[in-house]
Amino acid sequence: MDDGVPLLTLVPEHGSPRPPEPVARHAPVGSRILSRILIEDVYPELDGGRYPVKRIVGEVLEVWVDLLRDGHDEIAAVLKYAADGEAWRETRFRHHDNDRWVARVPLDRIGRWRYTIEAWHDRFETWRRDVAAKLEAGQSVALELIEGRALIEAAIIVAAPADAALLQPLLTNITAAEPARRARMMLSNRLRAVMARSGERGDISRYPRALEVVVDRPEARFSAWYEMFARSQGRVPGKSATFRDCIARLPEIAAMGFDVVYLPPIHPIGRVNRKGADNSTTAKPGEPGSPYAIGAMEGGHRAVHPELGTLDDFSRFVAAAAGHGLEVALDFAIQCAPDHPWVREHPNWFRFRPDGSIRHAENPPKKYEDIVNVDFECADRVALWNELRDTVLFWIGQGVRIFRVDNPHTKPLPFWEWLIGEVKTRCPEAVFLSEAFTRPKMMRSLAKAGFSQSYTYFTWRNTKAELTDYLTELSQGWGKEYFRPNFFANTPDILPFYLQQSGRAGFRIRLVLAGTLSPAYGIYNGFELCENVAVPGREEYLHSEKYEYKVWDWDRPGHIKDDITILNRFRRDNPALAELSNLRFLVCADPNILAYMKASADGANTVIVVVNLDPHCSHRGTVMLPFADADFEEAFSGRTLKARGRALRVTLDPARQPALLLRLKHVAAR
Amino acid sequence: MDDGVPLLTLVPEHGSPRPPEPVARHAPVGSRILSRILIEDVYPELDGGRYPVKRIVGEVLEVWVDLLRDGHDEIAAVLKYAADGEAWRETRFRHHDNDRWVARVPLDRIGRWRYTIEAWHDRFETWRRDVAAKLEAGQSVALELIEGRALIEAAIIVAAPADAALLQPLLTNITAAEPARRARMMLSNRLRAVMARSGERGDISRYPRALEVVVDRPEARFSAWYEMFARSQGRVPGKSATFRDCIARLPEIAAMGFDVVYLPPIHPIGRVNRKGADNSTTAKPGEPGSPYAIGAMEGGHRAVHPELGTLDDFSRFVAAAAGHGLEVALDFAIQCAPDHPWVREHPNWFRFRPDGSIRHAENPPKKYEDIVNVDFECADRVALWNELRDTVLFWIGQGVRIFRVDNPHTKPLPFWEWLIGEVKTRCPEAVFLSEAFTRPKMMRSLAKAGFSQSYTYFTWRNTKAELTDYLTELSQGWGKEYFRPNFFANTPDILPFYLQQSGRAGFRIRLVLAGTLSPAYGIYNGFELCENVAVPGREEYLHSEKYEYKVWDWDRPGHIKDDITILNRFRRDNPALAELSNLRFLVCADPNILAYMKASADGANTVIVVVNLDPHCSHRGTVMLPFADADFEEAFSGRTLKARGRALRVTLDPARQPALLLRLKHVAAR
Repeated sequence: MDDGVPLLTLVPEHGSPRPPEPVARHAPVGSRILSRILIEDVYPELDGGRYPVKRIVGEVLEVWVDLLRDGHDEIAAVLKYAADGEAWRETRFRHHDNDRWVARVPLDRIGRWRYTIEAWHDRFETWRRDVAAKLEAGQSVALELIEGRALIEAAIIVAAPADAALLQPLLTNITAAEPARRARMMLSNRLRAVMARSGERGDISRYPRALEVVVDRPEARFSAWYEMFARSQGRVPGKSATFRDCIARLPEIAAMGFDVVYLPPIHPIGRVNRKGADNSTTAKPGEPGSPYAIGAMEGGHRAVHPELGTLDDFSRFVAAAAGHGLEVALDFAIQCAPDHPWVREHPNWFRFRPDGSIRHAENPPKKYEDIVNVDFECADRVALWNELRDTVLFWIGQGVRIFRVDNPHTKPLPFWEWLIGEVKTRCPEAVFLSEAFTRPKMMRSLAKAGFSQSYTYFTWRNTKAELTDYLTELSQGWGKEYFRPNFFANTPDILPFYLQQSGRAGFRIRLVLAGTLSPAYGIYNGFELCENVAVPGREEYLHSEKYEYKVWDWDRPGHIKDDITILNRFRRDNPALAELSNLRFLVCADPNILAYMKASADGANTVIVVVNLDPHCSHRGTVMLPFADADFEEAFSGRTLKARGRALRVTLDPARQPALLLRLKHVAAR
Repeated sequence: MDDGVPLLTLVPEHGSPRPPEPVARHAPVGSRILSRILIEDVYPELDGGRYPVKRIVGEVLEVWVDLLRDGHDEIAAVLKYAADGEAWRETRFRHHDNDRWVARVPLDRIGRWRYTIEAWHDRFETWRRDVAAKLEAGQSVALELIEGRALIEAAIIVAAPADAALLQPLLTNITAAEPARRARMMLSNRLRAVMARSGERGDISRYPRALEVVVDRPEARFSAWYEMFARSQGRVPGKSATFRDCIARLPEIAAMGFDVVYLPPIHPIGRVNRKGADNSTTAKPGEPGSPYAIGAMEGGHRAVHPELGTLDDFSRFVAAAAGHGLEVALDFAIQCAPDHPWVREHPNWFRFRPDGSIRHAENPPKKYEDIVNVDFECADRVALWNELRDTVLFWIGQGVRIFRVDNPHTKPLPFWEWLIGEVKTRCPEAVFLSEAFTRPKMMRSLAKAGFSQSYTYFTWRNTKAELTDYLTELSQGWGKEYFRPNFFANTPDILPFYLQQSGRAGFRIRLVLAGTLSPAYGIYNGFELCENVAVPGREEYLHSEKYEYKVWDWDRPGHIKDDITILNRFRRDNPALAELSNLRFLVCADPNILAYMKASADGANTVIVVVNLDPHCSHRGTVMLPFADADFEEAFSGRTLKARGRALRVTLDPARQPALLLRLKHVAAR
């Protein structure tokens, strides 16, 4: 695809030394109407409307706003809204309290919606209120009735034909009526309703910005991911697996209850400066190299590694996954091996040194000789950016809808905003996961730029205080409007120290935390086997499959596949776990026991999770509940638990069952 | 003055049905440079730059910002700033922590300043850091040195001549040097400093908005006001005082330490529907009417009531006040009596009923027959708005710089933004006090629109919890950037129930609270005499001087002029009291004792105030101090108080001395 020039986020002129003017305060006097109503403090609005907020299809968008007008007259307002490509519609705001108004819109389709606000001076409602007050006080309203009739006459002119046809006979009757009856007729609820709908919108004020909300499919927030190296799914040591081997693994993954199968890069791997086993700078003959050194003579980002199979084999894998209810996620890693076809075909996309050599990736003094980075600012960047976008669209053409993006924080934020916007315009179902383990503001900015989900610091949050603080920030802070966590318990790059030292219980603990604290979570293959052998003193897997062929015994003794199956079923059975901002921590005095609750918006589903964070010792405690005398069903054991009053007594032995997955069955009192 | 058309804040087109477009995310590809640096979360920035924040001349403006760039390269940034009419200058941001940067600018003149931000990719600093890291690791930097020389060559082209003249010989020396010495020369601090100043600003990012700060003179925040009815300052019952009588009162007011003498309207008073004593709807012959029913055959808003004297007499009053170190504040009340000259000369500025009668002010069922309001939306509003602005400028021409604006919340916010902007462009020293006792958001919006000071709810905040909550909001909330309180203890319209019931002690308590909690405060004449006779069940003064001639005995027994004098001297002697956001409440267990501290920014001046809020009973308590073993000088008694450790024991008998004004003399330990 090459349909059109990419629209980059660029500054208008590099050389311009002129700073911007202040926000215009005054419009020329030629404008016709003075806008007396202030529209302020709109929620949701992210960075002055610079970025969209995010919602899930089927949710209701609640918009709150301050509306202020001088004096005592009545005002009215509508929320104007439109799904992408649809005409504007509108719904009324209602006054909540203290100049705060609210409107609600059901978000019934996926895509990028926009919304804005209009408010006006409601002259008829003001008139009606004043006349009622004067009648109540026994004052004459003779002049007021004449003025009211003028308002109705004006409405007839601007009203829709149907409303004008209602108003005309009402006005005729009023004019014909005895003066004594006129006031009552003009204060009727029927006239009020028609005038509210069709009366003139005098002194209209418009919010100067259209705000946006990206409405995603539910999987953008809620899904369980299983990450696997395609080449490690076989049974022959020293040899790459194929997509056929991957297909053979799907029933087991589906049985564990996952929603997404995510594959690190499946493309041809460069030969120049190829990495050997254990990240050695030189590969021995026959070593496969890192799949993140993408591209070789067999092809680049649109090709499949010949050892895995053909593009057709990949399509069969995608179809087989779908048959098991699984979606396939691909890695989108923009770096290239030095022998990637782009380097030969588009040398102007790369940077070269004074001696004519290509510039490798580096972070001095660290060097990454098997990788070269594209130059996003190169003179030929229109072609480069288009090619990258079209690469994503190519895989969408192969049936992929989910992309895990490698290290997005080392590529320009405006590039991501452009690329994700371009792709989602063509495929609104696309989901992008940001793999940015970096500084907090950069992680948030990537989410603002458009990423649907983000890796997080969860991997290093272990204690009760750490988890409570971090999850409070994620679920209650402003980020909840746009930053959706995906809690990976491990990754090919991260075997956390906690898992290295905690044994099987630790894996069970981290599984429950990841899968119930965050709506989206994932594990990387080996987690289910409690694989915990690291390079000493580091969070790297020993003999990582990133650099070699690997064969796993997926039924190795000590695995926790039963736990995973139960957890994923619990997630699917309890819609409360599909949300993040409903998380509430519960008080439990024991510092090792973390307890929290999630309830669905309609109150029909309530879940409580209690976890012993200490993988080595049994702990007991009392969890304080927000309701009394409740019955729960516990998912791991199948037992029924009863709370006495508002206290739930728990004892959690990590060797037996380190966590409770409780679904509320019945409450005696709230 | 009628120099030009007023620039109104207006919506462009009433009839336009098209909602705004979303904030542009993408600029056309024709733009030359990709802007990779994000400039976000600027402080201070009010409502996306829509309104200026406020500061006082002599203060330092601190600007904070998040700067984010992908990858690992170094960035640099400047704050660009300009006082009104001056050229842009710039100062460097320095990195504080976690992608947060800060810059500081001394605000050395009154007026409307603007500021914005530029950031860029600092290629030389990045190069320098990387070369140092490689040298440290023993790696070759031969190619890097060539690349570094290219950066210096590029800098020579764009640098100011003086810097180019420094760089050129450095470059020559580097080129001539032994390769082994080159790296050290290129990493020199001298080269670094010149390159930081003059190196190319690559990939420049500009904040899209210029933000504004209104810099006022100190009196806009800190002043003590004395409000007096001009016509009540004489000695002959049933007869109006004159400006000569007012001049005679100035020595006493100055001796009490006030900074501002504020006069309710001094203009001719309408005769049509004139109010009589006690707000009677009909005036008896000889009754003077309310000064807020402005305008009669003798003149309107630019005229002086003949009973008070001439315009020359007023000028003598202003000059005499200045001679006592007092400024005069005038009332700006836009309503008109039905016989105001404007009604005759500009009937199109007013609204008429269907029977041809003029529309009086009303708030049904309440009617205000002695007042008509101008129609700010009238077809001839350009002339109307100009006339109102020029009225203010007329009084500025008479030497008045401070205006207390009556009921601004019943006039359009865009009108105030326009009027105050227009006046302050011509007279940056002008100060506007908003008398809006209305809903909180409207009060804040008036302050955003430009009012320098605002009346507050202080008048009705009496308990420890009420005062602590309200002052925390005012001094620590976002409003502190633009909303400056003026704590009036009473007004002609408000004799609070607390003062009606609290006796002399209550007046002393409220005086201390008003004058030390808020930098600006005021009393209305009679307060110093503890006048507390109200219309039963209401907060109105009995036989209010708003509707009749009044004569006061300014030395009536029981007055508290000594307290006022001591308080105002204490305010002037302690610069900490000139600020609001430095307010900190101190812990004291007794619910009747309120204690708080203010310290100046440089720490040189610290004040602690302790008040017994109960006017009837003595209370004792222990105030917890943030430092130990301090000595204080108490202003009312002149005694020295000593704290033992961090505890200050106090006993406050309202009959003797309900409050302590403590100035810190010496601290043994912090």
